[in-house]
Amino acid sequence: MSKSSLIQPRTLRGFRDYLPDAMMPREQLIDTARQVYRSYGFSPIDTPALEYEEILAGKGGDESDKLMYRFEDGGGRSVGMRFDLTVPLARFAAQHVAQLGVPWKRYQIATVWRAEKSQRGRYREFMQCDFDTIGTRSLAADIETAVVIHDLFSTLKLSDIHIHINHRQVLTGLLEQVGLLDQSVVVLRAIDKLAKIGHEKVAEEIETVGGASAQQAKEVLQLCNISGTNDEMLRQVEALVVSSETGMEGLHALRQIVAGASAAGVPQDKIKIDVATARGLDYYTGTVYETFLDQLPNIGSVCSGGRYDNLAKLFTHQELPGIGASLGLDRLLAAMEELGMIEKVSTPAQVFIPFFEKSRLHEYLQLATQLRAAGIGVEVFPEPKKLGQQLKYADRRGFRIALIMGDQEFSDGTCQVKNLSTGSSEEIGLDPDASNLVSAVRQLLV
Amino acid sequence: MSKSSLIQPRTLRGFRDYLPDAMMPREQLIDTARQVYRSYGFSPIDTPALEYEEILAGKGGDESDKLMYRFEDGGGRSVGMRFDLTVPLARFAAQHVAQLGVPWKRYQIATVWRAEKSQRGRYREFMQCDFDTIGTRSLAADIETAVVIHDLFSTLKLSDIHIHINHRQVLTGLLEQVGLLDQSVVVLRAIDKLAKIGHEKVAEEIETVGGASAQQAKEVLQLCNISGTNDEMLRQVEALVVSSETGMEGLHALRQIVAGASAAGVPQDKIKIDVATARGLDYYTGTVYETFLDQLPNIGSVCSGGRYDNLAKLFTHQELPGIGASLGLDRLLAAMEELGMIEKVSTPAQVFIPFFEKSRLHEYLQLATQLRAAGIGVEVFPEPKKLGQQLKYADRRGFRIALIMGDQEFSDGTCQVKNLSTGSSEEIGLDPDASNLVSAVRQLLV
Repeated sequence: MSKSSLIQPRTLRGFRDYLPDAMMPREQLIDTARQVYRSYGFSPIDTPALEYEEILAGKGGDESDKLMYRFEDGGGRSVGMRFDLTVPLARFAAQHVAQLGVPWKRYQIATVWRAEKSQRGRYREFMQCDFDTIGTRSLAADIETAVVIHDLFSTLKLSDIHIHINHRQVLTGLLEQVGLLDQSVVVLRAIDKLAKIGHEKVAEEIETVGGASAQQAKEVLQLCNISGTNDEMLRQVEALVVSSETGMEGLHALRQIVAGASAAGVPQDKIKIDVATARGLDYYTGTVYETFLDQLPNIGSVCSGGRYDNLAKLFTHQELPGIGASLGLDRLLAAMEELGMIEKVSTPAQVFIPFFEKSRLHEYLQLATQLRAAGIGVEVFPEPKKLGQQLKYADRRGFRIALIMGDQEFSDGTCQVKNLSTGSSEEIGLDPDASNLVSAVRQLLV
Repeated sequence: MSKSSLIQPRTLRGFRDYLPDAMMPREQLIDTARQVYRSYGFSPIDTPALEYEEILAGKGGDESDKLMYRFEDGGGRSVGMRFDLTVPLARFAAQHVAQLGVPWKRYQIATVWRAEKSQRGRYREFMQCDFDTIGTRSLAADIETAVVIHDLFSTLKLSDIHIHINHRQVLTGLLEQVGLLDQSVVVLRAIDKLAKIGHEKVAEEIETVGGASAQQAKEVLQLCNISGTNDEMLRQVEALVVSSETGMEGLHALRQIVAGASAAGVPQDKIKIDVATARGLDYYTGTVYETFLDQLPNIGSVCSGGRYDNLAKLFTHQELPGIGASLGLDRLLAAMEELGMIEKVSTPAQVFIPFFEKSRLHEYLQLATQLRAAGIGVEVFPEPKKLGQQLKYADRRGFRIALIMGDQEFSDGTCQVKNLSTGSSEEIGLDPDASNLVSAVRQLLV
C-alpha cells in the first residue's frame, strides 16, 4: 500500500459505528437491564462469538441457518458466528449443567450477527439482552418472568406498557377441540400474524396452508376475538377449552401468573391475557410473553419470551426445561428516542475545567482530582486555548458545569461556577479540600 | 439430524465459556474501568466486530495479519474480525472526525479475535479495555494518561503498582548520538526484551541484527543501565542525550509528566522513569507506559500504551495525533485471582428466600419485592423443596443471608434472618413495609 493512496474509511453494509451520543444511552440501557436481572439473582455468563457450525446449524429454523455467518477457520474447522444467545445457552447448559446445578438463572447481554438482507433496513450486528431460568417447571418462574419484565420497564421509567401473556396449552387445547392439533404449527404461525394481516387473511391461511375447514378456522379465531379484563378473559377461555385437560392446564397457569404477579406488586392492569399472542417460535411450549409500549404499539413487542420444555435436547439426554425473555435493545432505544427520552449528550463527565492560564495546569489538575475524589466526573481541556473556544467545546459535548479560573480567580482564591444550561455563574471561595466547590457543584447537578 | 444422536456440546479450541463465578469479577473489573474512564470525560464508542479486510489488513504488523480471522461474506466481500481496537479506532476517527471534533476522548471495551496457536496457552477471543485522547499533542494528555492508569489501579484496590514511563525521543536521541538512528526499530525491539533475555543477548541482537559495533551496543545499553529516583534518572539521561535536540525534547516530556502527575495527586514513587521501556509496537512515537504489579512482576505489564503521531494516516490526510493505553483485562483477572482478591461467588443477589411453605408463594414474592424496592437483591427459590436442600443451594451459590419463614413465622409475623457465613440467626418482627427487616439485612451486608 503506497502512502499517498488512502483507504476509504467505511463500515460494512448493515454494520454501524456507535458514536458517543448513541453509545451512552445504549450503555445506560444495558446497565439498567443488568441491574434489574441481578436483583432477582440472575447471574451473568458469556459464551464465544464463534462456535462449531454443527452447534449452531439447524437450531434456529431455516431462516437462522440462511442468515448465519459461517466460514472455515485456519485449522479447517467449519465455524459460525452466533445468531442468537439461545442456541449457545442450550450448548452451555448441556456442557456445564453438572457444575452449575439446577435451578439456575442466567443473563447474557452480548452481540449476535445475522446476514439480513440490508434493504430490509435491518442491522447485521446487534445486541441481545436475555434472562432465563433453567431446570424448573414451577410456575413461580413463570410469575417471576412477568415481574422482571415489569420491573425492567418501571426502572427505565417506561411505565406505559402492557405485558401480553398467553399459554401454548390454551391454544393446543382449543386446537384439540377444534380438531386441528396436527396443524398446530401452521395455525399458530397464522394466529401470530393477526395484528399485522387481520382476521380474514389469518382465516384464509389456516384454511389453505393448514387444510382446515371454514368452520374450524372460525372456531380458532373465536378464541382470538375474546376480550375484556383478565377475569373476564379467564372465564371465556375456560368456556372454550373446558373439555381439554391440556387447555385447562394452560388456563391454570395463566391464572397463577396473573395472581402471583399481582402479589409481587405488578399493577393488575399491566398484565394482559391475550390469547392471540402465539409467538411464531416453535420451541415455546408453555407461557409466552410480549411487551408493548402504549404510545408506540406499532413497533411491536420490545420484550418477548416464553417457556420451553427442553432447551438442550440436541446436546444432552438430561431434561432442561426453562423459561426466559429477551429485551429488544435496539428497538427499545429507537422507541425511547422517538419518545424524546434520550438526551443528546456525548460526555459522561458533567463538569468541565477550561485550561486557559498556561502556567496553571497543575492547579487545574489538582482541582479535578479533588472533585473526582468526591465522585464528580471532570474533564480538563488538554490545551491552553482561548476560553471562548473551550466553552464552545463544552457546550457541544453537553457538559453541565464549567469551573472557570483565570489569574484573577487564582489570586483571589475563588472559582467561577458556570451553569452551562442557563449561562449563569456564581463565585465560590476555594478552601483547601475544595469542599465548598464540591457542594456548589453537587447542588447544580441535582 | 436424528433425535437420538446427540451433538457434543463443546467450544472451539482457544475459546471459552464464562460461568457465573468467572463472569462476575470480569463484569466488575469492566465496570471499574468504565467508571474511571468516564470520570475523566472519556466517552464510550463501539465499532463492528467485522470490517472490510482492507481496513484491517497490514495495520497491526505481520503477526496480526497472520492471526486475523478472515473470510468472504455472502455478498462476496472480503471481511475480517477485528484483532484489536486500535485499527478500528483509526478507521472510526478518520470517518467521523468532522462530527466528533478534536480533541476527542474515547474508551472502548470490546471483544477481539486472534487465531493464536493454541499451544501457547493463549485465548483466541479476549477483551480489550482501551482509552485514548485523539487530536492533541499537548503534554497535558500525557500527564492525564498516567493519572488515569494510577486511578484505575487505586480504584481496583491494587495500590502496589508501578507505572514505568519512557519517551521514544529519549531513545531516538541516544541512537542519534550513538549513530544507530537508522537501525532504531531493530534496536528498540531488542531493548524491549531486556527483562526477558538479559543484557548480553540484547547486545548480541543489536550487533547481529542491527549491524552495530560492540561499542555502539555498549553505549545503548548504558542508557538502560542507569537507575535511581526519577530526579536522578532525569539527570543521568540528560547527560547522555544533552547534545540531541530530539532527546532533550523527550527528556522535557518525562519531566513534565512526573511533575504533572504528582500535582494531580499520584504519589511520586508510583511513576518510575525507565529508559529500558521501549514497547515493541512501531507506531509509538512519544511517551510510552507500562504498568507492573509489585507482587507479580513476572506476568508483565497489565496496562500499557503510549503516544502516536498520526493514528489514521492510512485513512485520512488529516493529522490525528493521539495517546492512550489499554488495560490487560484477562491478565489482570488472572493476577487478582492469584492474589486472592477474587471471591468465589456465583450469585449477584445477596439475599435468598427459601420457598418451603407451598401455599405461601405470594407472601415470599411480596417480601422479595419490598427488599428489592430498598435496593437489596433477592432470589426466591422457584420450587417448594425441603428447606435443607434450599439452604445448600444458597450456600453453594454464595448468598450471604437467608430469610426463613415457615408457618410459625407467618403466624407470629416474624422472619428468621440467617447469616449464611456464620450460621447465626436472629428473629425480626415484620412491619407492613418490612423496614425492620431491611435495616437488619443492611446491617449484615455492611
